[in-house]
Amino acid sequence: MPGGGHEFALIDWIRRRSRSSSNVPLGIGDDAALVDLAPDGRCLVTTDMLMDGVDFMLASTPAELIGRKALAVNLSDIAAMAGRPVAAFVSLALPRANGRALAEGLYAGLGGLADEYGVVIAGGDTNSWDGPLVINVAVLGAPTGPGAVTRGGAQPGDWIMATGALGGSLSGRHLTFAPRVREALALHQTADLHAMIDLSDGLASDLPHILQESGVGALVRAAAIPVHDDVDPSLDASARLRHALSDGEDFELLFTVPPGDGLRLLEERPFDTPLSHIGDIIADRSCLLESHDGRREPLPGGGWEHTFTS
Amino acid sequence: MPGGGHEFALIDWIRRRSRSSSNVPLGIGDDAALVDLAPDGRCLVTTDMLMDGVDFMLASTPAELIGRKALAVNLSDIAAMAGRPVAAFVSLALPRANGRALAEGLYAGLGGLADEYGVVIAGGDTNSWDGPLVINVAVLGAPTGPGAVTRGGAQPGDWIMATGALGGSLSGRHLTFAPRVREALALHQTADLHAMIDLSDGLASDLPHILQESGVGALVRAAAIPVHDDVDPSLDASARLRHALSDGEDFELLFTVPPGDGLRLLEERPFDTPLSHIGDIIADRSCLLESHDGRREPLPGGGWEHTFTS
Repeated sequence: MPGGGHEFALIDWIRRRSRSSSNVPLGIGDDAALVDLAPDGRCLVTTDMLMDGVDFMLASTPAELIGRKALAVNLSDIAAMAGRPVAAFVSLALPRANGRALAEGLYAGLGGLADEYGVVIAGGDTNSWDGPLVINVAVLGAPTGPGAVTRGGAQPGDWIMATGALGGSLSGRHLTFAPRVREALALHQTADLHAMIDLSDGLASDLPHILQESGVGALVRAAAIPVHDDVDPSLDASARLRHALSDGEDFELLFTVPPGDGLRLLEERPFDTPLSHIGDIIADRSCLLESHDGRREPLPGGGWEHTFTS
Repeated sequence: MPGGGHEFALIDWIRRRSRSSSNVPLGIGDDAALVDLAPDGRCLVTTDMLMDGVDFMLASTPAELIGRKALAVNLSDIAAMAGRPVAAFVSLALPRANGRALAEGLYAGLGGLADEYGVVIAGGDTNSWDGPLVINVAVLGAPTGPGAVTRGGAQPGDWIMATGALGGSLSGRHLTFAPRVREALALHQTADLHAMIDLSDGLASDLPHILQESGVGALVRAAAIPVHDDVDPSLDASARLRHALSDGEDFELLFTVPPGDGLRLLEERPFDTPLSHIGDIIADRSCLLESHDGRREPLPGGGWEHTFTS
């Protein structure tokens, strides 16, 4: 079953133990880390590990799509910082049976997407073992324009906006989605991006990251949430909304901008990908959903989170 | 059983398919990749994936030592480029049972070694699953002095030198070795390093990488190979030599320098770690071992290489 599998409590524990450094102005806790090696040498770094049975089902999925996804989720992280991806590093733990053919399939998907986005696969580590397929990709990127866009800059009054449509990704789109790199760069050129994240665990899980890092709250309008066609159309509106909020693996951009910039984005449409104004940042540190009939309630939690047995 | 598990034929296949780029002057095929993001922003990147049952035995090894090793092998790769390690990125696939405690143990080892070497753990990806423990670490480093030292610069007449002593690492040293970062930086300041690699698969497997990349050969003297005390002292000299050449996981530096620089290194001893002159680079593209009685024969192959079943 596909899904994230992040251990938020553990990640928080790791983050609290991490040290700061002038070389790492931004480390654990955002979509990618910023590494400052020289006056003009800042680079973004992100890494994601995908495992058979968790993020894909090897038995029923072409290897090309698995390789593609392993890179795509990292490109989405670089996009979420408004970065330009530059180089990828691929580590593989390959099952021994048909390992070579599997690797070739994975690299066909990796290489195709890398070419499409101008990324060089610049290294890695290739191993075989008796366990299931594991693929880890790390990507380096270059910040653009006025620099990396973090999760921490949202301000009361900002519009909350999203690219694309949400929900139903696990029926297949999670293997074929287009990372929003070009959209992120266009947004960064056109608007004053205050905060940005990519939607990997679902809006209901990912928006709170922006709110927490920025010390603000949000009011989201249910009627404004773009529900994807992949969500079962036979469901009622409330169930469809729940999918859009919680399915995860949308890999769309969620960002906040001053209202004037948001309005201009809706008017100028700097790219074909749909853009929605789904709510607003508020000073009160709550996260509210305004339903179709005007009622306001806490945004229901959701998204993927796996837990340990101890 | 510990060991490398590299798929050399597959790595070569991947390398042939990789593209070059002005952003990546050095990609697949060396100990680390060089990523050029800006005029003064070159950074070294390396990544290694360790799996339970292949690189360590979780059931019989403290988690701290596993975490330590996962970082140490990457620091050794940065050292092999004469780089200064800066930031590390850790991806985990944790077994669900006791996953939290396991991760804390891993990070104790990771963090301790990171502090010792001035490295920041700057990001990662933490997951749980029903499979065995997998840990991937990526490290970024900064080139030093006149730049990164590759495998490709050895010249006929060069001395072949090694730090430390070889063999028997798998009895325990592979979990506790000191990555030769300080030694590499001192060598880079003191001598004209023509080529360098870290000994991960064993001298008999790793020296040929330098020879192939440099288009040269080597004559190695058996009597000059420093055999580690970890190699069973009850074995005869020939068996002990075989262990020193082929056991792997020594994580010592193997490098070539002009004879004058080699002589000066032996006289000045820029660090306490032992240094040995074990042979010489020759123009003829063969790799020969001169035995104690003066006979010359091809250096016997060895080192760890796992193979697929298809």
